[in-house]
Amino acid sequence: MTDRTVYFISDGTGITAETFGNSILAQFPIKPRHVRRPFVDTTEKAYAVVREINETGEREGKRAIVFATLVDREVLKIVRDHCQGRVIDMFATFIEPLEEEFQVKSNHRVGRFSDVARSQEYHDRIEAINFSLAHDDGQSAKNLDAADVILVGVSRCGKTPTSLYLAMQHGIKAANYPLIPEDFERNKMPASLAPHKGKCFGLTIDPDRLSQIRNERRPGSKYADILNCRYEINEAEKMMKREGIAWLSSTHKSIEEIATTILRDIRPDRLVY
Amino acid sequence: MTDRTVYFISDGTGITAETFGNSILAQFPIKPRHVRRPFVDTTEKAYAVVREINETGEREGKRAIVFATLVDREVLKIVRDHCQGRVIDMFATFIEPLEEEFQVKSNHRVGRFSDVARSQEYHDRIEAINFSLAHDDGQSAKNLDAADVILVGVSRCGKTPTSLYLAMQHGIKAANYPLIPEDFERNKMPASLAPHKGKCFGLTIDPDRLSQIRNERRPGSKYADILNCRYEINEAEKMMKREGIAWLSSTHKSIEEIATTILRDIRPDRLVY
Repeated sequence: MTDRTVYFISDGTGITAETFGNSILAQFPIKPRHVRRPFVDTTEKAYAVVREINETGEREGKRAIVFATLVDREVLKIVRDHCQGRVIDMFATFIEPLEEEFQVKSNHRVGRFSDVARSQEYHDRIEAINFSLAHDDGQSAKNLDAADVILVGVSRCGKTPTSLYLAMQHGIKAANYPLIPEDFERNKMPASLAPHKGKCFGLTIDPDRLSQIRNERRPGSKYADILNCRYEINEAEKMMKREGIAWLSSTHKSIEEIATTILRDIRPDRLVY
Repeated sequence: MTDRTVYFISDGTGITAETFGNSILAQFPIKPRHVRRPFVDTTEKAYAVVREINETGEREGKRAIVFATLVDREVLKIVRDHCQGRVIDMFATFIEPLEEEFQVKSNHRVGRFSDVARSQEYHDRIEAINFSLAHDDGQSAKNLDAADVILVGVSRCGKTPTSLYLAMQHGIKAANYPLIPEDFERNKMPASLAPHKGKCFGLTIDPDRLSQIRNERRPGSKYADILNCRYEINEAEKMMKREGIAWLSSTHKSIEEIATTILRDIRPDRLVY
């Protein structure tokens, strides 16, 4: 934590400002204080946030960095004219060149999500979340026909967060199905998955990491024991190879990275829309 | 859909490029074709994607728009030198002014999520997702002490997707608890919530919209009937007012907007970190 403050301001939710700002800040070996100010959508709120930013800069002796996504022209003007912070306005920087490129004026609509709650795309996302929840951890083999992807792997290898992320971020109906010791003894994939092998995607994980994660849940159990973890992972990987299922290791990957890789491998038709 | 193509390219997942690019494109009344090309992290991949972009532009008679988040210098150079698309490089545009501002060189690290899978923040996010899942729909009143927020409201008003979003995006432990007709007859909040009223947040919804959503689940049921929906919503709102619980209507809001509002109202200490 340094004595420098970064603001994320927006006339919408500020999620874009924050996501993008954080990606940029990740390139620097500094840890500034973060302050979010969403929904700055009136002139009063604009003056208030500008005052706050200016006071912060004076107190800290260094001007604040301000990541902004401002569509409202009046708000933008107030920020431009009066803010003493270093404003990085992501919209303004790129909208004008694109108006030229597209030969069309921009709408100046606030926020990415305006009116989205009634759109088909949003409806599909919510449906996908409900589907992924209902098909978490092999809870239901019903409607697997409707799944876009079925994640398979041993318990605690990252299937659940990845399927929820796929649903929430990409509107993908992602079921997930655990591989359990009985599957390994039978030397067969779970029977309910067999007709859907084409949309199965495997997750694996380093046995040491798995043992560590399982120990947080059930300390000292056989379930968490390193020998058992090694056995399960070895068997799971053998099964995926034998069945020709694409798979990856979640050990050093975030759910975002896993999801992106799965999307690229399994649903190329959704990648171009 | 127009005959114009937009590329999202990145040496990471491309999620930032896509989120930001979509926010910008939402300002224009056009519907270009979208193509995602994540993990462009070698010179070969860079040449391949540049070739693809150039060919697309020639075929369509209009150069492609390329939203890029490129940290790798070699990849960036290839794209800059050879790409005939209109490249909007979000990193390059802002990194240099910030190096000056911070008086420190950037790391040129690829991606926001690199190595993140082992970080405390990531661990907390996964824990929050597990917590929110275990406390979905009033499944468990155990550990409500540990909740950051408890969403309350009638069935199908948006509690579940919002709590999962809060967990996934913000690492917030969000439980959710349904208000059911028995609660209204007793004229009391569910007993297990009473000790946690301070962190309850209410969701409501327009009765017509609720009836429509419920009819998709159980067509023609009393549950979905408009009169019943009006009754439940009226009682729920009365209860929230009486108990002094902050609440908002999800009718015209996306889960992102609901989540942002909740965060601002209920956890100001998490907003500044």
